[in-house]
Formats: sequence, C-alpha cells, structure tokens
Amino acid sequence: MLENVDLSQAITSEEYKKSIKTLQLELGELQRKAWELKIPIIIVFEGWHASGMGEDINRFILPLDPRGLDFYTMTRPCYEEKLRPFMLRFWSQIPIKGRMAIFDRSWYSRAVIELFGKEKDEKALEKTLEETTYFERQLADDGYLILKFFLHISEKEQKERFKAIKKMDIPLILDEYEGKNGKELDFIEKYDEYLPVVEKILEKTDVPYAPWTIIEANDRNFAVLKIMITVTHAIKTHIEKVTRTPGQQTIKYLDMATVNLPALNGSTLEKTDLSKNLSLKEYRESKKLFQHRLETLQYELFRKKRSVLIIFEGWDAAGKGGDIRRLVEELNPRLYRVVPVGSPNDTEKAHQYLWRFCDAAPMAGHITIFDRSWYGRVLVERVEGLCTEEEWRRAYREINEFEKILADSGVIILKFWLHIDRETQLERFKSRLNDPEKRWKITEDDWRNRNRWEDYKIAADEMLQKTSTLGAPWIIIESRDKRYSRVKVLKTTAETLEKELES
Amino acid sequence: MLENVDLSQAITSEEYKKSIKTLQLELGELQRKAWELKIPIIIVFEGWHASGMGEDINRFILPLDPRGLDFYTMTRPCYEEKLRPFMLRFWSQIPIKGRMAIFDRSWYSRAVIELFGKEKDEKALEKTLEETTYFERQLADDGYLILKFFLHISEKEQKERFKAIKKMDIPLILDEYEGKNGKELDFIEKYDEYLPVVEKILEKTDVPYAPWTIIEANDRNFAVLKIMITVTHAIKTHIEKVTRTPGQQTIKYLDMATVNLPALNGSTLEKTDLSKNLSLKEYRESKKLFQHRLETLQYELFRKKRSVLIIFEGWDAAGKGGDIRRLVEELNPRLYRVVPVGSPNDTEKAHQYLWRFCDAAPMAGHITIFDRSWYGRVLVERVEGLCTEEEWRRAYREINEFEKILADSGVIILKFWLHIDRETQLERFKSRLNDPEKRWKITEDDWRNRNRWEDYKIAADEMLQKTSTLGAPWIIIESRDKRYSRVKVLKTTAETLEKELES
Repeated sequence: MLENVDLSQAITSEEYKKSIKTLQLELGELQRKAWELKIPIIIVFEGWHASGMGEDINRFILPLDPRGLDFYTMTRPCYEEKLRPFMLRFWSQIPIKGRMAIFDRSWYSRAVIELFGKEKDEKALEKTLEETTYFERQLADDGYLILKFFLHISEKEQKERFKAIKKMDIPLILDEYEGKNGKELDFIEKYDEYLPVVEKILEKTDVPYAPWTIIEANDRNFAVLKIMITVTHAIKTHIEKVTRTPGQQTIKYLDMATVNLPALNGSTLEKTDLSKNLSLKEYRESKKLFQHRLETLQYELFRKKRSVLIIFEGWDAAGKGGDIRRLVEELNPRLYRVVPVGSPNDTEKAHQYLWRFCDAAPMAGHITIFDRSWYGRVLVERVEGLCTEEEWRRAYREINEFEKILADSGVIILKFWLHIDRETQLERFKSRLNDPEKRWKITEDDWRNRNRWEDYKIAADEMLQKTSTLGAPWIIIESRDKRYSRVKVLKTTAETLEKELES
Repeated sequence: MLENVDLSQAITSEEYKKSIKTLQLELGELQRKAWELKIPIIIVFEGWHASGMGEDINRFILPLDPRGLDFYTMTRPCYEEKLRPFMLRFWSQIPIKGRMAIFDRSWYSRAVIELFGKEKDEKALEKTLEETTYFERQLADDGYLILKFFLHISEKEQKERFKAIKKMDIPLILDEYEGKNGKELDFIEKYDEYLPVVEKILEKTDVPYAPWTIIEANDRNFAVLKIMITVTHAIKTHIEKVTRTPGQQTIKYLDMATVNLPALNGSTLEKTDLSKNLSLKEYRESKKLFQHRLETLQYELFRKKRSVLIIFEGWDAAGKGGDIRRLVEELNPRLYRVVPVGSPNDTEKAHQYLWRFCDAAPMAGHITIFDRSWYGRVLVERVEGLCTEEEWRRAYREINEFEKILADSGVIILKFWLHIDRETQLERFKSRLNDPEKRWKITEDDWRNRNRWEDYKIAADEMLQKTSTLGAPWIIIESRDKRYSRVKVLKTTAETLEKELES
C-alpha cells in the first residue's frame, strides 16, 4: 500500500491557513455531536520514526475539548501488563461511549516490538494481527468508529530529519519514556528492513470497519489537513449512518477526490516521467538480449513448476498489444497463453465477477498474460457505473485476496500499467484512423473513455495505491516512447523471474 | 463445537412422514422463488465417513427441480486442477445466479486430504482456511446464500456402520472414484485422530455469512428433517432480506427452538445424569487428595508462568459458591483471585461488554476464578432481553475469539456448568428461606429466573454447544449431589492442570 504513494504533495501556508480554521470549528462541533449520540471513537496513529507524529497529533487535537478525550502514548508494558495476554492491555483502554481515544502508537507498534521482536517471529506477528481483527471488528460491531493513520515519509526524508534532530539535541519523548538504555524502538529507524513488515501489517489489517489511511507526511501542512479532513468526514458519515431513518438514501463513502482542496488529490501517474526513451540501436540490442533471457527462463520455470501471471492494464492506445507481442515473440506457445479480457458475457455476468478468471489462471510451470483483467472492476466498471460504488470499493480488498491466493500457491505476479498522456493518445487515435490497416482498432468506446480521462486517472491512481501489494506490485511503464515501453516490460519480467527462480 | 452435541436425538417414522411432505413442497416452492429472484445458493455437506451423507443428500434433493441444481462430488483433482491454485477449482464451480449448487464434500475435505495430508501440515491448513473465508465472504457479499452442514456421528456408531457396510459388500462410490489404490480417504476413518482437526475447521470457518450447522446424524430421519428445516428457513430469511423494502422490520434469525417439532430441540442438559453421588467417606478422601494436589500445582504454575482461568456458570442455587470455596480452600491467596460478576455498572455499560473483564484476566503464574462471567451475555442478557438478539447471536463468536486470545497466550481455561434440576432448585430455595443465615442468598431475581427455566435451558444448551472450543471446553458438573459436584470440580481442575504442565 505504500508503493504508489505520492510523497511530493504539499500545501502552502496560505492554503493551509485558509482551510484549517473551518476544519477546526467543524471538528469541535462533531466531537460534541458524537458525545451527544454516545458514539465512541478510536483514532490510531502509526508511522515512521521522525514522521512528525507528535506535532501532527498535537495540531489535530488542539480544537478538541480535552474533557472528551483520552490520549494514550503506547510504551513498554508495565510488570502486570507483561503478565497478561497482549491484546487485553489495549482492550482495557477503549473509550467510554461518546468519548474519543487517541492512540499515539498502538497495538501495531507494540506487536512489532514485543512479539515480532529481534527474532523476527513471523508466526507471533501473524497471530496477533489476527487477534487485532477480532478486537477491532468486535468494537466496530458495537458501534465504535475506528480510524487508523499511517504517517509515511521516504527513507531519504527520514535521514535528513534524523540529522536535523541530532543537531537540535532535543530529547525524544519516547526515548525518555524508555529510559537511557531504551534501545527498544531502534527498529523504526531501519527503514528498508522494516518496510515489508509495515506493508504486511497495513495489508492484513486494512479492513472496512477499521481502515488505514496513508498520510503523506513529508509536508506537515498537507499531513495535518489530510488527517483533519479524513476524521471530520468519517465522523460525519458515521453520525449520518447512526441517525438516519430507514428508507433514507445510503451514505456516501469518503472520497478524497470530492474534497474541495485540489492539492489533496495526489497523482502518481501525473508525476510519471514520460520523456524516457530509447534509440533504435539501444532498443534492438536490449530487446534481443531480454527476449533471449526469457526464452531460457521459461524452461527453467517449467522445470521448477513455477507459474507466472502478467497483467497488462493502461490507457487505450498505450501499446498493450505491441508490448505483449514482443514479450511472447521468442517464447514456446506450449508454455504461455494470452487471455484478452473484454466485457463479460451473460453467463459471466451471472456469476461473481472473479469467477470468469478462475480457469484462466496459470498452471504450474506456465505463463498466462492478461490483456486487461479483473481490474476492470475498479476501472471501467467504476467509471461507467457498471457496478455500484459499494461493489468497486469492496473490490480492492477482494482482488488483493484473490491475488494472495495465487501468490501463496507460488504464482509469480507482475502487473504493468502502461502510461501515456492525453495528447499522445489523441495522436495515436488519429494515426490509427488514417491507417486502413489499423482503423479497426478504434471504436466508439475509445472516444467515450477518452472523454472521461480525468475520472479514469482518479480510478487508476486509487487502484495503483490500493492494490499494490508485496506479493503483487504494480509497475508503471512509461509508454510515450514505444521502444522504451517494450524494453522496460521485457527487462522487468526477465529480472523478476530470475530473482524469483534464484530464491 | 462437537463436544456438547446430543447425538441421541431421533424422530419416529410417523413424525417424519407427517413433516416431510410439507417441507418438500415448501423447498420446491422456495427453489423456484430463488430462481426468480436470481439468488444463488451454495450448500456444503461435510461429515464423518459413514455418516450417511449420500442418502441424506439424496432425500434432500428429491423435491428439487434438477434443472436448477448443480451437484458436485469432490474428489481427487485432475492433472490440470492440480497445477492450479487450490481454491480456484472450487471458485470455478460456484452456481450461476438463481441456481443451487450442492457440494458433496468440498474445499474443506480436500484441504485436509491434499494440503494437511499425512504430514499434518498445520500451516498449509491454516492458510487455506483463511483463503476459504476470503472465498465465502466475497460470494456472500455478492448475494450468494451459503449453508454448510457437518454430519456428526459418534465413533461407536461409525464403527458399527463400518461393520454393516463390510457385510453388505457394497462398493463405496467414493472408493470407486478413487480407483482401487485409492487410499486417499482413509483419514476419515481415524475418528479420534481427526476429531481435533475437524473441530478446528468448524471453529475457524463458522462465520456469520456462511455458518456451519451440526447435523446429529445417528438417526436418519432426524438428520434429513433438520437439514430440510435449516435450508428452507435460511432461504426464506434470505428472500425476505432481499425483497423487503426499507423501513420494514428486520428479519428473525433461524432458531431451532421455534420450529414446531419438539424432537428437534436436543438438550445436552436434559440428558445429564443427575443421580451421580458420593458417600461422605469417599467425599472426604477425594477432597483431601485433590486439594493437596492443587496446593502443589499452584506453585508449579507459578514457576512455569502458566496462568489459569476457571469460569463457574450454572443454575441459581446449583452450588457455585460452595464449589469455589472448596477449590481455593488450600490455595495461597497471593496466587489466586475470585472475581464475582454481577450486573454491569454504568461505566461498564458504557463500554463494549468484554471491556470490564480485561483487567481481571489472570496474570502469568496466577489463577483467576470467575463466579459468573462474560457468558451473562448469552444467558441472562439474552433471556431477559437486556441486549438485542443480534448482539447475543454475535456474542458466541466474540467470546470464542476472546477466549482464543487468552488461550493462545498460554492461559489454561476451564469452564464449569453446574447443573441441577428444577425440583432440586426449589428445595434449596425453600431451605435457604427457612435458614436465617442463608436467607440473604435468595433475591427476587432468583424467583424471576426460576420462572424462565425453559428459556434459560435453551440458552444454556446453545451456549454449551457454540462456545465449547478446543482451547476452552465446557465441563458439565452434575450438582444435585453437592459432594459429587465439589469433587468433580477439584478432580477435573487438578487433572487438567497436571496434563497442561506436563506438555
């Protein structure tokens, strides 16, 4: 979930000042309203060391009435707590109905420190993550509103902040809590080592009743505003749900895209560098090299009974067909299969939407390439209203689960998003229309989709973030230059397979 | 979940004939209705070998229109299936919307055979059970109605049936499927070895959107009727849910107690042999023996940092207080604690209901004894309407999860249900009233509860079945004879602790 987060987002002081006042008033009002309605609220803050959690939380709680607030800083357990089952320590801190409990770090950090520990006890961590879902679901079922924030910064940013902190010579509050020999929290500094652990936790515990919101925390203003907006929106939605009379319209989910702050809508795609290109000579050499490596790799896959799933998604005319052709050019057709995915037929529509892909999943030792895929659910079906909002919202998790089933059984998964800009698409459409041999490639659907470019971009950005998982990451392919696109696909595939086959 | 199942239940041929016709007509009608409404239905049958599954399924499907039915017998995977991820084989067999798919064995049996296997690969099994919940939840969210039956017989009954089958020399269909060297299914015969595996599967996958129903299958008539009633009721409920307009009353859950067939309401409690008793001499000797053993054991617990949780539930005047006194008589008060549980106070009421027990959980090395407990949720709160039906229905799973959190962290859990009959209770109430020193023990609540004896019995029976888990089983204590009751508590406790400390 952290892979396709755009950390460059920032908000100017002016913009910040303009918005913060309104949000503060609103939050205060909502706190009183929640108290009247006896809605208990749990807000969890987690994040990288030096992500600015302390300051962000402080700015967040300023407008709140402290009489309705419980604030917990999660540190080392005391003697009695250590002797009791791990989860109970947190269970006993849930707020009274109507109050808000803020957890400055929580059962998640503590599970990593106390249970996963230095021995990297995966099993203990997994068990606790499962217990976490019991805990949170039971509370949600009992009417608790649960929000979880992860404050995300880049490793580079973190290093710079550490340097600055050192210079200031300010004692870190948590270190004080822990005592001078408090080496306990060290782990949070080992960014790259713990990134997969954090990813795993976020993926496993991002549940509808207690969702994670990733906060891009490189910029303080941005972080605070996003936290405030997310919380106010969630409380409003919850109040609406609790107070609405039967028969009323169902609530709308939080959609950052609808929030009236353009800067809040980060786009990984917009930041993609489309100027990347290759000369004809570079292209020919690389293509030959990687196609040859793939030719060898396919037999290695077959021998080791490892299967591969490659998904191609992207804009119309981004070059999916051409990329796929170069990918399979030197392969043995007995070992690969290309599955083009279009609109579902009647039989397919009459089943759950993942059903139609079951038989196309790769067999051990084989490669399956999907030209479009189940991601249609959160792209075309979302944008064109072919499924309900509730359905495509749910689909992120469903797809992650489905891919986990594949990955866990040994399937190597590669997902390519072929990216171009709107102008390039228009050029390609036109040149297709002018070429009698390519005219068939252009349909009315393509023009319709083109007109909804912005909606598709929002959908694609959200998809790239929510479905990029450890076992099945998204790879963005810069495709304005067709040669660059083809070689990047070939290279990424070859290198991924080599790495997987080595391990 | 199989522990407190009353396998002695039976229905006479006359009763059977009287009910079956109506049920058959109803089921046929419901199938047509589900087709019209495009409701897809999945019915899973699992159970012990020789539990009569084939015949039961046959009687069940007779009234159904075969045109709306898919029937699958789950056997060994074919070559292609073997090369694909395990779950996809079943995913690709889900019914079209409006149809009913019957699975004669399912992903559960296959997971045990193919993944758990002879190597007893616990990890592979756990992973698959998790995948199972993805699969079933996604389908349920998509509108599928999922019902799962486990056909339960005793080991003794199974052995007798095996003998009878051998005599008849009829080839078992499944054996034929498997070929002559089809040793694959042998496991189902090793009853006691696989009982914990079956228990684990039932516990882990008994989810609200795809619940298990245990079918007492010693008696064929009973089994078929219970299957028919459960299915018809579930379809009716589902249709009601799908077709009701907003604002209408919410649906009623399936409650076997309301079904108009007295014989369907099995009661473990009613079958309890209350005539068990001890002479004064036996009582004194045993009491001394076990109290002494417990005295030693408590220090052993402390040394090994193992904690113990003992829960006492049972009828008013069943002797909880007396039993607890004898249990702690020779213990060191620094190592045990008795927690009496009454109605929650205002602060407690303002939290989720399990909150108030968190601080009372035993610390490592200590013993905590609860005189009444969180089971109030599914006993007094259910019967007196102090919580909603939805809340106490949910509580079985919540309590199992809560106890799992305890058990997984090393707490040894013992749960005693002190059982007496209604007459014994009356005698004891009267004698308490006549004894000025015991009169305080009798309150109006006791008389009120006594008047709702039948409701409490239904609630207790359901609780005993649904919350008896591997890590925290219920033990019924026959308590008409106080001496017998006390000694059984002492003996069970001592022996359980000895066993746990050895391992």
